[in-house]
Amino acid sequence: MSHLLLTGGRVVTSSGTSDADVLVRGGRIEAIGRLGDLPIAEAERVDVTGRLLLPGGVDVHTHIDSPMMGTTTSDDFETGTRAAACGGTTTLVDFAMQLPGQSLTNALAGHHAKAEGKAVVDYGFHMCVTDLYEGATGEFAEIVQSGVSSFKVFMAYRGSIMLHDGDLFEVLRTSGGLGGQVCVHAESGDVIDRLSADLVAAGRTGPGSHEISRPPSTEIEAVERAIKIARMADSPLYFVHLSTEGAVEAVAEARSKEWAIAGETCTHYLTLDRSLYDAPGFEAAKVVLTPPLRTQEHRDALWRGLRAGTLGVVSSDHCPFCLEEKRRLGSADFRAIPNGGPGVEHRFIVMYAEGVRAGRISLEKFVDLVAGAPARQFGLPSKGAITTGADADIVVLDPEGTTTITAETQNQRMDYTPYEGWTLPGAIESVYSRGELIARDGRYVGVAGRGRFLARTTQ
Amino acid sequence: MSHLLLTGGRVVTSSGTSDADVLVRGGRIEAIGRLGDLPIAEAERVDVTGRLLLPGGVDVHTHIDSPMMGTTTSDDFETGTRAAACGGTTTLVDFAMQLPGQSLTNALAGHHAKAEGKAVVDYGFHMCVTDLYEGATGEFAEIVQSGVSSFKVFMAYRGSIMLHDGDLFEVLRTSGGLGGQVCVHAESGDVIDRLSADLVAAGRTGPGSHEISRPPSTEIEAVERAIKIARMADSPLYFVHLSTEGAVEAVAEARSKEWAIAGETCTHYLTLDRSLYDAPGFEAAKVVLTPPLRTQEHRDALWRGLRAGTLGVVSSDHCPFCLEEKRRLGSADFRAIPNGGPGVEHRFIVMYAEGVRAGRISLEKFVDLVAGAPARQFGLPSKGAITTGADADIVVLDPEGTTTITAETQNQRMDYTPYEGWTLPGAIESVYSRGELIARDGRYVGVAGRGRFLARTTQ
Amino acid sequence: MSHLLLTGGRVVTSSGTSDADVLVRGGRIEAIGRLGDLPIAEAERVDVTGRLLLPGGVDVHTHIDSPMMGTTTSDDFETGTRAAACGGTTTLVDFAMQLPGQSLTNALAGHHAKAEGKAVVDYGFHMCVTDLYEGATGEFAEIVQSGVSSFKVFMAYRGSIMLHDGDLFEVLRTSGGLGGQVCVHAESGDVIDRLSADLVAAGRTGPGSHEISRPPSTEIEAVERAIKIARMADSPLYFVHLSTEGAVEAVAEARSKEWAIAGETCTHYLTLDRSLYDAPGFEAAKVVLTPPLRTQEHRDALWRGLRAGTLGVVSSDHCPFCLEEKRRLGSADFRAIPNGGPGVEHRFIVMYAEGVRAGRISLEKFVDLVAGAPARQFGLPSKGAITTGADADIVVLDPEGTTTITAETQNQRMDYTPYEGWTLPGAIESVYSRGELIARDGRYVGVAGRGRFLARTTQ
Amino acid sequence: MSHLLLTGGRVVTSSGTSDADVLVRGGRIEAIGRLGDLPIAEAERVDVTGRLLLPGGVDVHTHIDSPMMGTTTSDDFETGTRAAACGGTTTLVDFAMQLPGQSLTNALAGHHAKAEGKAVVDYGFHMCVTDLYEGATGEFAEIVQSGVSSFKVFMAYRGSIMLHDGDLFEVLRTSGGLGGQVCVHAESGDVIDRLSADLVAAGRTGPGSHEISRPPSTEIEAVERAIKIARMADSPLYFVHLSTEGAVEAVAEARSKEWAIAGETCTHYLTLDRSLYDAPGFEAAKVVLTPPLRTQEHRDALWRGLRAGTLGVVSSDHCPFCLEEKRRLGSADFRAIPNGGPGVEHRFIVMYAEGVRAGRISLEKFVDLVAGAPARQFGLPSKGAITTGADADIVVLDPEGTTTITAETQNQRMDYTPYEGWTLPGAIESVYSRGELIARDGRYVGVAGRGRFLARTTQ
Repeated sequence: MSHLLLTGGRVVTSSGTSDADVLVRGGRIEAIGRLGDLPIAEAERVDVTGRLLLPGGVDVHTHIDSPMMGTTTSDDFETGTRAAACGGTTTLVDFAMQLPGQSLTNALAGHHAKAEGKAVVDYGFHMCVTDLYEGATGEFAEIVQSGVSSFKVFMAYRGSIMLHDGDLFEVLRTSGGLGGQVCVHAESGDVIDRLSADLVAAGRTGPGSHEISRPPSTEIEAVERAIKIARMADSPLYFVHLSTEGAVEAVAEARSKEWAIAGETCTHYLTLDRSLYDAPGFEAAKVVLTPPLRTQEHRDALWRGLRAGTLGVVSSDHCPFCLEEKRRLGSADFRAIPNGGPGVEHRFIVMYAEGVRAGRISLEKFVDLVAGAPARQFGLPSKGAITTGADADIVVLDPEGTTTITAETQNQRMDYTPYEGWTLPGAIESVYSRGELIARDGRYVGVAGRGRFLARTTQ
Repeated sequence: MSHLLLTGGRVVTSSGTSDADVLVRGGRIEAIGRLGDLPIAEAERVDVTGRLLLPGGVDVHTHIDSPMMGTTTSDDFETGTRAAACGGTTTLVDFAMQLPGQSLTNALAGHHAKAEGKAVVDYGFHMCVTDLYEGATGEFAEIVQSGVSSFKVFMAYRGSIMLHDGDLFEVLRTSGGLGGQVCVHAESGDVIDRLSADLVAAGRTGPGSHEISRPPSTEIEAVERAIKIARMADSPLYFVHLSTEGAVEAVAEARSKEWAIAGETCTHYLTLDRSLYDAPGFEAAKVVLTPPLRTQEHRDALWRGLRAGTLGVVSSDHCPFCLEEKRRLGSADFRAIPNGGPGVEHRFIVMYAEGVRAGRISLEKFVDLVAGAPARQFGLPSKGAITTGADADIVVLDPEGTTTITAETQNQRMDYTPYEGWTLPGAIESVYSRGELIARDGRYVGVAGRGRFLARTTQ
Repeated sequence: MSHLLLTGGRVVTSSGTSDADVLVRGGRIEAIGRLGDLPIAEAERVDVTGRLLLPGGVDVHTHIDSPMMGTTTSDDFETGTRAAACGGTTTLVDFAMQLPGQSLTNALAGHHAKAEGKAVVDYGFHMCVTDLYEGATGEFAEIVQSGVSSFKVFMAYRGSIMLHDGDLFEVLRTSGGLGGQVCVHAESGDVIDRLSADLVAAGRTGPGSHEISRPPSTEIEAVERAIKIARMADSPLYFVHLSTEGAVEAVAEARSKEWAIAGETCTHYLTLDRSLYDAPGFEAAKVVLTPPLRTQEHRDALWRGLRAGTLGVVSSDHCPFCLEEKRRLGSADFRAIPNGGPGVEHRFIVMYAEGVRAGRISLEKFVDLVAGAPARQFGLPSKGAITTGADADIVVLDPEGTTTITAETQNQRMDYTPYEGWTLPGAIESVYSRGELIARDGRYVGVAGRGRFLARTTQ
Repeated sequence: MSHLLLTGGRVVTSSGTSDADVLVRGGRIEAIGRLGDLPIAEAERVDVTGRLLLPGGVDVHTHIDSPMMGTTTSDDFETGTRAAACGGTTTLVDFAMQLPGQSLTNALAGHHAKAEGKAVVDYGFHMCVTDLYEGATGEFAEIVQSGVSSFKVFMAYRGSIMLHDGDLFEVLRTSGGLGGQVCVHAESGDVIDRLSADLVAAGRTGPGSHEISRPPSTEIEAVERAIKIARMADSPLYFVHLSTEGAVEAVAEARSKEWAIAGETCTHYLTLDRSLYDAPGFEAAKVVLTPPLRTQEHRDALWRGLRAGTLGVVSSDHCPFCLEEKRRLGSADFRAIPNGGPGVEHRFIVMYAEGVRAGRISLEKFVDLVAGAPARQFGLPSKGAITTGADADIVVLDPEGTTTITAETQNQRMDYTPYEGWTLPGAIESVYSRGELIARDGRYVGVAGRGRFLARTTQ
């Protein structure tokens, strides 16, 4: 295979930034440095002077082609991974959902079938456990050995996907014993159900009630509970989508004791305000996602948590439901609105703009949060860094460019985006996956179905 | 009614001790001081020189004639309250249990029927809520107005009496709104069930496994969770039978924020060691009570918590099951052993000996823990103190005497006592209830069925 | 000696309230209860129907006839103790100041000479240690044996009365070994000096700068430091005049570990706002006291601390300097304004009105804060409670009356009061000290110089 | 200048490890990757197959040619930096000491003179402030502009080099305002002086008393105090040589709030036990260094702190005094023994062996602790990483080799080493500084006086 030589760029890794050329061969990074003068045979030279060379994004929290709350997320693996690619994300770890009555291995096989031949970026899976039937934990070893080394548990949604604390404990123990880890959706589900029922009983059935039914205390309680259960189980735990100051504090305290507790937050908790729930009509349904958006105070704490290393990962929680679908199901009762929103396409550029360009985090930290750390956290050693031997997943970003986000131009299969009309500094010019150019100026230019399943390692 | 004048004693109250005579009329305390020289007509004079005059004990945690775990506690209101009286306890607040399918008001009426005409000391009830059926909270107001101003919820025992967090939240909210309070049995029941199942699966079916299945972390997790749920509900909460250092710390932190969180511990957690679970054969079943006994480290923390005011009350958790009954139900599987043990008779003297005489607490603190504080906590203004106008419930204790505890001589209807053979400094000579001598030298001398129901106030 | 019988009142103690008569003989309380019908020979009967009978106040923080900052406090033991008596305070523990170059025993003898024959209420002393010369700690035993069982140390005012941390440690160790305790003025003196110098350098020389130079953090730092030094010395410590939320939290945490840490606050920190520093001209000098007044947030925390038992005592920190004297010394530089203000006369009624009547604390708590707890804390068993055998120090308070505070009518030798013009619910009608009526309607009616030195016990 | 090509090694950086060749030109790293096949003209090829290529060590805590406690450290800049080079450390930041009566700029100039022309590795300085004379802070700006962007303050050693809290505050404020940082030696000096005097008074004058006079609480108190003072000053603070669990916890809590608090520990606190103070005779003087060595419990906490990121740097605190010199000054009184020991030569290999090979930290973490993080912390962007454009300071380490440490063979000018006779896995084969081979197999092979002063950046 011929070489690719990106010359004149500024290479950013989690630990530093340097002006360097990048040499790619066989889909992998071959060398980094001042290579431009060297007589490298067969090299295709691409001048990226003035551009940042960033590792392709790793998004470890997406729900693609996934059954949920009586419907299915709107992106399938073709549209979802194309959107990811166009937005600079070259690796996904998606949630394989278990339906009621379905065995875990069957559920996993079904999700493999949905992705294979359709995904255009590399992908792995987390295994959602929503029904811990007799014998379920007996299948964990096989699942982990197949490269699905993490499980997901919900502490909310009684009656559909919630596990009780004893089952959470059991999942943690079994997974931990296999070197796996458990992703936890931490909310006091039972209290939320009571608060929600009150709101409906009081006639407050609109989408804005979603936020009121899930106050910060319901996240914090569940986070602190889950930490204690993980300690009893002596197993690692990863909190998905943290949104509150109290949650950050709880994770910080746990980590200071060197407990194996990790936390992620999502793009929208860092950038969108709860006032969106005050929108008239059904508009607020766009941000009916769980947990809900919070106030500035919480956002400040989340950014602080990222800088301090308490929160290590920023994911998208891409869980897209079109507004029309939300309306169809939930116009009479906010509890029936599917919880979720889009995000896989814009996580990278929004974090670059709101994080780096707004002065909240360094370029190195940005790269770590959206690529390096998620890859390390979830056992993807070939991803997330521009380093010798790694997969050549590279984003070429023009810091002088700008990006405007609209529903009309996005690649996600969605009829809205919460970032509608935002114009941000920075433009993703081109995206390479294993050395192949797959996106250019926001359009997918690669071949179809080229994504590979990534068997992930254990800890 | 004629007067009673106790002369020459040393009167102890929560706030001080003084050499003083006590004058009683009409069942109430009329005056305290140097009254011996006064010409008081019709007064029966009893010389109590050298004795301590202590307020009659108030035990707010007993289970008398109560269905539980497939059987019934061994004491009925006759034997249980006679045992209390002989041991210096003149007031009980007992748990009225709700059975599956039973309405709360029916359950309460049933418990009234059990007590009336049989109890020999005054008594009140807490209402246990084990099944929050539709409409259950609608009965709370009537219950509170009837003088039953506290409710009890269990966070353990799924499938029988456990409520989930949403129901706990609802009970707290409703009770709090009525000025009532909620007593919580705080254990991570679902985790305990998993740990218990493991032990049985491993063939460890003996009574010693009870302790292993309920490690300190299971109490602490539930305590911290309940505190948070009480905060969400903005309602007061009272923890029964705390046994661990971590629980004391959690309550201390909550109280330092002036949250309405209170805690009790029990005689046995302060005085008995977990090594009793290492006894051979079925002997350990004697201390199969919940939560289990702990190590010295935890006992030290509990005493510290009492001194610091973190824990305000010492109760007996009198929940008697004869050893034969425990064996009948649970010889094959420790999970079926009824959880509980006796205690109402010996709480007072054990706390005096192990607390005051062992130098751990002052005499005033002792009086507060076993009488003053529980009366204040649960709305019994006429009880728990030797003060003008209060009910003349008085214990005459000879500090020079000794007490030996044996199953053979106890008044509780039990075939064992965990304090078997203990000889303690101090002897309860006589016990007055509303000015009537009801016990003398450990034997009941009052009339039958003289106890009155106490309608308790709200907060 | 003849009897005194106060009939028809409502007696309040730290642990309860009851309608009761009080019988006094020989200066001590003889009996409490329904005594009015009894034929008590020679009894002078005083009808106090509708009145509260409260223990005489115990104020453990006063600076009478004391050299400080280049001048002397304005009250001597005659005026100061008369003001106390008129305001319902029947016991003082005053600070005996050590001047540079003076031995401790000489300093103490000098303070005895100032008080003897002049004081009209009973009094004890704390020994201020401002210069720990070689051999100073060798005098501690004699001082403690003489009934002065507490020492005072300043962590501020370098160059005059401040001790460094090593000396604080040494005072704590020596005192602790003798069963004494150490009162600490906790402020980061050295940081304050820097902040003060900055303000003066910036031309901000007016009295309002006093507050800015002593931010809350300077109290909190010193409190946390002193707690740690007390732990190293394994000795008890009592913080005087705490004013901040952070200090309350630090003391609460220490106490929850059962460390021997106690704290007081003062009337003015509970009732006066920092906005007084914004007054024009030299007016703000009236509240140039140390630490300065704080915001509502801190006051809320102090009240919370009182209710939770974190802070056990409310004192006056009576340290009176006339406004004219403040002006004479400090008109050009706020650092030279003598730090202090009046308070011994109004602590009792202000706390009753702002505490009990404003609904912040119970009547029993009030009595404990201003009388019971300070007496217990500082080894005065005969003071602070209406109980058989105690000194008959009794305040008769009419809850229906009102009190108006003005400089013109006050008994303190001062030209202002920070409570000028306040009209409060409740009126102190009469005050008894050891059974003698010494004040009536705000005027002293007792004999001169009747106060006795109180030798205090150790812990 | 000709090229250097290191081929076949394994390159380690803070964020990852890869098999890669390293190309050096002009003293800088030119490229990293699979370069061996490329036709690079003039390249000297060195085969380092099987070796680790690590960034040269950065030791930010050394005292070379420094007056202290009545003597001078035994290494001058020639011997000290040669020892550093032989041990794999290619950058020092040394403390420039201010003597009494000396101006800061004069003191700094004097230290420059000592280093220039003698040092063989690159070096920077911290400015010690031991006497904050009038106008001292006015010189800070000039000092910082000269590339000395950090100051050092001692909270111990009253009467010689200690600053009081007000001066610490002032140094912090001034430095912080200039973008500098302050290194703090945190010990409760005044308490230590008291404890030391006690020991001497009790006849315990031997070197073992050193430890007893400086218990963990004395470090923890000072650390917590300094954090608060830094907050008041709103300035960053860096703790040198932390040794206790409590200190780690305090720093962790501060960092979780995103306060600018950093901490280092030293090789010996991680690897040596306090039992060395029990050695007979004067032997214990070898480890009379400050703070003293601690127990295993503290070492565990320090390692935990390193892994959690609470402590970011491991330095040597190289402060060498020969045992003979220690004896000469301190045989009669442990307080006169110069405090310090050697370490610059062995920090790198001891940390590699005890950290990486003993399984306590990863290779990447090791590299960060001894090179990457100290370079970032103290403004040395060209040091501490093997990355394009950085100075080619490279250590070639053979993981299959072994290293034996003895006083006889060490390069430090010392008559002992606390690691005497230790044989460790791993051997430093060769050391490059700016592309020049300067050490080989533990012997210096470079030219004399080649080290350059490093002007450091501000934050």
